[in-house]
Amino acid sequence: MRAGSRQDEGRGGTRLTDSHAPIGVFDSGIGGLTVVREIMRQMPQENIVYFGDTARVPYGSKSRDTIIRYCRQIVSFLRTKRVKAIVIACNTASAHALDVIEAEQDIPVIGVIRAGAKTAAETTANGRIGVIATRGTIDSRVYEQVLHESHPEFQIFGKACPLFVPLVEEGLTHDFITEEIARRYVRDLQYKGIDTLILGCTHYPLLRTLLCKVMGEEVRLVNPAYETAIELKQLLKEQGLARGSLAGESDAPSGTDLAAASTDRILPSSRLLPPAEYRFYVSDLAAQFQEFANSILPYDVAGTEQIDIEAYGAGR
Amino acid sequence: MRAGSRQDEGRGGTRLTDSHAPIGVFDSGIGGLTVVREIMRQMPQENIVYFGDTARVPYGSKSRDTIIRYCRQIVSFLRTKRVKAIVIACNTASAHALDVIEAEQDIPVIGVIRAGAKTAAETTANGRIGVIATRGTIDSRVYEQVLHESHPEFQIFGKACPLFVPLVEEGLTHDFITEEIARRYVRDLQYKGIDTLILGCTHYPLLRTLLCKVMGEEVRLVNPAYETAIELKQLLKEQGLARGSLAGESDAPSGTDLAAASTDRILPSSRLLPPAEYRFYVSDLAAQFQEFANSILPYDVAGTEQIDIEAYGAGR
Repeated sequence: MRAGSRQDEGRGGTRLTDSHAPIGVFDSGIGGLTVVREIMRQMPQENIVYFGDTARVPYGSKSRDTIIRYCRQIVSFLRTKRVKAIVIACNTASAHALDVIEAEQDIPVIGVIRAGAKTAAETTANGRIGVIATRGTIDSRVYEQVLHESHPEFQIFGKACPLFVPLVEEGLTHDFITEEIARRYVRDLQYKGIDTLILGCTHYPLLRTLLCKVMGEEVRLVNPAYETAIELKQLLKEQGLARGSLAGESDAPSGTDLAAASTDRILPSSRLLPPAEYRFYVSDLAAQFQEFANSILPYDVAGTEQIDIEAYGAGR
Repeated sequence: MRAGSRQDEGRGGTRLTDSHAPIGVFDSGIGGLTVVREIMRQMPQENIVYFGDTARVPYGSKSRDTIIRYCRQIVSFLRTKRVKAIVIACNTASAHALDVIEAEQDIPVIGVIRAGAKTAAETTANGRIGVIATRGTIDSRVYEQVLHESHPEFQIFGKACPLFVPLVEEGLTHDFITEEIARRYVRDLQYKGIDTLILGCTHYPLLRTLLCKVMGEEVRLVNPAYETAIELKQLLKEQGLARGSLAGESDAPSGTDLAAASTDRILPSSRLLPPAEYRFYVSDLAAQFQEFANSILPYDVAGTEQIDIEAYGAGR
């Protein structure tokens, strides 16, 4: 699926339909690339357009109105790329803007929170669920709200982990320093006796191995990026929007599968179709984005484009 | 100088002149409080109005035009508080907006970069100077530019330390984790044989003790927050704007004094004047700001006010 291996000769004969349109994925910055990674793994035939709002990151400290305005601008931009569906791959934006954007758009729009919450609810045996995330997500109590809609009896324990994002961005995902910090962060959650832990920030799946070790085998990790890709796959299939789905291709595992399954699972590329195309856009510092993207994606990201996101309409 | 000890009875009889007007200090967030701390120490008689742009932090990844627009809004706000001088207590904002703001205002405006660079130039013996800062400041090479204006022969070595700000904000200023990270960050600078290190981010003075230990005695640390307060004091004196300067009060030490001197030096409060008044404003999350402010200031910060900074004009 590398850029150099594109079989361009096959493209002229492919009839373009809605199902060939790309999936639009966006985040306040680079964390949403973990969702892109899961989509690449689970739906290697799908085209993707990613936008990272690197000029205005982080969203966590911004008001709901501001975040909705930003999301509308980004959706306006993605629609110029004729996307067939939109994934809000950012916890803060999902919490504040998903309902609004979904109501305004005539294509499917999904966020990362509901898929993660649903899987956590299916996973827990004792009803004690931990959530680790940025301070903004923890303070918003959004996972608690969503979980309590269907399971008011659950006890949800949140813990803000502000150092995880910079540690991941410094590449210290397997460092003893990060492990030591993780042990301090999760100590309270361990005392509370949780049996399920939601990785409530899109950067955190990159710490999965380390968090598995720190939490021990009794605690199951839920990766909303993985669950979101599963939900998306199901949705595209139901609406006839999946690109080149082939008879006999195995479905993704059910929603109760855990984050642990995600890294080893790479579905075979679709046959008969030209390879998927990936496009990356940011609002600032394209080079830095590209470096990080190349460190985590199974794909050689080249030519990330910087755009002026404020030039796109924020109206409905 | 605590809020509870205000001698309000003395205020009615005090004639308000320009010199009694407050000093306006602003930063993209909370880091600028280290500059406020130095002003409180060196000029305990001065009133201060602080603004932290906590809703739009960090500035490091934003364009020059955006930063100038933000600074103009903040200056408009500070002028409503009738400030007599403005300190841009943010490296990024100083780098991009100082010249513009200075040209537009009829009161003194100073930034943190020139004072730090001047002291570093006076301090170095071998002409090899290190700068540690956020990635934005390092990439801008602003300290290098300013130092090369007067000393083109100097060799400047920059190192971005993205983990320091979140480590400070997590309160880990004396933790072995921070020390280990610091050792890794400064290793290259040590190989380069620097004899002077500029703490090029307003958070870093809070790591001074730890950095002294890591760098060893041969390397002298320059704290621009401390040097900026000295420059401000001199400027106010020259322009007759110092509040209640008393005959016989000792002057601040010369610009060649080092950061090491700053924590132990608390000047005597002025006599005959009511105590200084401090006011704090932020654009978001006032409570969190207050917690951090109380942890570093020799003053009990209460009643931080959240304002809508975008309501203030960005014009000249």
